[in-house]
Amino acid sequence: MSTPVLFFVDDLAEGLEPSAQRFHQADPTAAQINVLDLSVTRGDGIFETAGVQHGSIMALDAHLTRFAHSAAMLDLPQPRLEVWAAAIRAAVAAHEPADMLSAKFIMTRGIEGTGVPVGWVYVFEGDEHDHEREHGISVVTLDRGYRHDVAQTSPWLLQGAKTLSYAVNKAVLREAARRGAEDVIFVSSDGFVLEGPTSSVILLRDGRFSTPALDQGILAGTTQADAFTILEAQGHTVEYRQIRADELVGADGLWLLSSTRCAAPVRELDGAPVPIAREISDALNTALLARTK
Amino acid sequence: MSTPVLFFVDDLAEGLEPSAQRFHQADPTAAQINVLDLSVTRGDGIFETAGVQHGSIMALDAHLTRFAHSAAMLDLPQPRLEVWAAAIRAAVAAHEPADMLSAKFIMTRGIEGTGVPVGWVYVFEGDEHDHEREHGISVVTLDRGYRHDVAQTSPWLLQGAKTLSYAVNKAVLREAARRGAEDVIFVSSDGFVLEGPTSSVILLRDGRFSTPALDQGILAGTTQADAFTILEAQGHTVEYRQIRADELVGADGLWLLSSTRCAAPVRELDGAPVPIAREISDALNTALLARTK
Repeated sequence: MSTPVLFFVDDLAEGLEPSAQRFHQADPTAAQINVLDLSVTRGDGIFETAGVQHGSIMALDAHLTRFAHSAAMLDLPQPRLEVWAAAIRAAVAAHEPADMLSAKFIMTRGIEGTGVPVGWVYVFEGDEHDHEREHGISVVTLDRGYRHDVAQTSPWLLQGAKTLSYAVNKAVLREAARRGAEDVIFVSSDGFVLEGPTSSVILLRDGRFSTPALDQGILAGTTQADAFTILEAQGHTVEYRQIRADELVGADGLWLLSSTRCAAPVRELDGAPVPIAREISDALNTALLARTK
Repeated sequence: MSTPVLFFVDDLAEGLEPSAQRFHQADPTAAQINVLDLSVTRGDGIFETAGVQHGSIMALDAHLTRFAHSAAMLDLPQPRLEVWAAAIRAAVAAHEPADMLSAKFIMTRGIEGTGVPVGWVYVFEGDEHDHEREHGISVVTLDRGYRHDVAQTSPWLLQGAKTLSYAVNKAVLREAARRGAEDVIFVSSDGFVLEGPTSSVILLRDGRFSTPALDQGILAGTTQADAFTILEAQGHTVEYRQIRADELVGADGLWLLSSTRCAAPVRELDGAPVPIAREISDALNTALLARTK
């Protein structure tokens, strides 16, 4: 495994003291974060993870847009996106070349009491996902506990923001493992398909590709959006809509989409087999892996 | 403000490599945490905050018990409670004397990929709470989004564990501030009183003191438990039960309880005045502040 690269972003958000430098490199093996940083003590911050294919950062604008949206939802200062983009590009350039890298960027509320956010970019070579794209994944549905409309009724629950408070997103993967599965599709308490803990859902049924409408407290998937563009260009019909959980039974194809894994076909859902739409799946992944921005 | 004290716990959990030392002091002003620590990136860990009155740690056993319970809920290794207790006592002893201190202790899942938790104790002098105990606080009720029985139906949502994923607990305080209030009482999506973001609720109505039954996905309040012991000893009737949100209207007294604030009377709920049961409130706080363990 190659050596990861860490860049701290200095001039990171609006309304803060100007910084002499925009960003700087740091040692990822050294301790860098204070025990009072609110990311540590409260999971109070936001993040994004972009895929980097052959040195090209995928969907960077979409990730930056979502980062700014998450900041607004958490009442954080607005990130200076042009500085973040430059820091991300510099960190990727400082990493030794690889087929696929991940560029994770984080902004925390900073050390408690200071009101000054802390931010960094971490570029690393993650796991290979060829096997999942080829052979599919086993998934269970789990109740997310919230109604589908909770983002409208109760915005303080931060559904739709990509925060650092991801203990539940990790706990559901352990629950999936206990059930002999590898991943999860969240279902709302009133029975609608939402998203995975780190992915978006696309369903193929009756010749149409559907993904859950974005007003249901879920993240706008950057890879899902690119996949819809690709599928439309290939002549398929795509739609954002409410999807009932029982529609997943009898799917003609089902995928979890995320930045570096791309489109992982579901081969088993709650213990029952799901067909892998092989030709469609391979064509979709070939196109996703060939994106150059 | 006095200088905080930081102790890392080395021999911190069952099933790990034995450590030559049990704990050691560190510099809280220096960076101590790696950017890959799962507390930073995922809010993946647990914590407790005990009050320390005149050098005596309040309800330490109850905090340690809850810490172990949270660890089990997150599938973390079981903390070695005797080591944690010794580290907490040592950190408190290393702090300069003060009327009231807070001892916060944290165990994270550690640096991603290592499987080795990281833990520490942080002792500090927090804010004064005399004004809140004397004059009361303004509170709003906010929907927690979950049904009251979610801990039974969906344990992977970690309700009832005290985790580091507290972004929502901070967001609701900002929502309260937008509504001109200082604190929050969470209500379940099906209309039952739950808890505050960092406190327990006690309601006085019809001569009885009630707190929400603990099987509703809430934390077992250490200060609330001591308060019930005190109230019973003073001849009052106390009960754990389901409390409907509409029962808060027309309360004869209402308190939020937490370790260092003790019993903060609510003087206003959702904009309507709530009587401060002055004699009861003062007697309760006097007793809570006089606890010697």
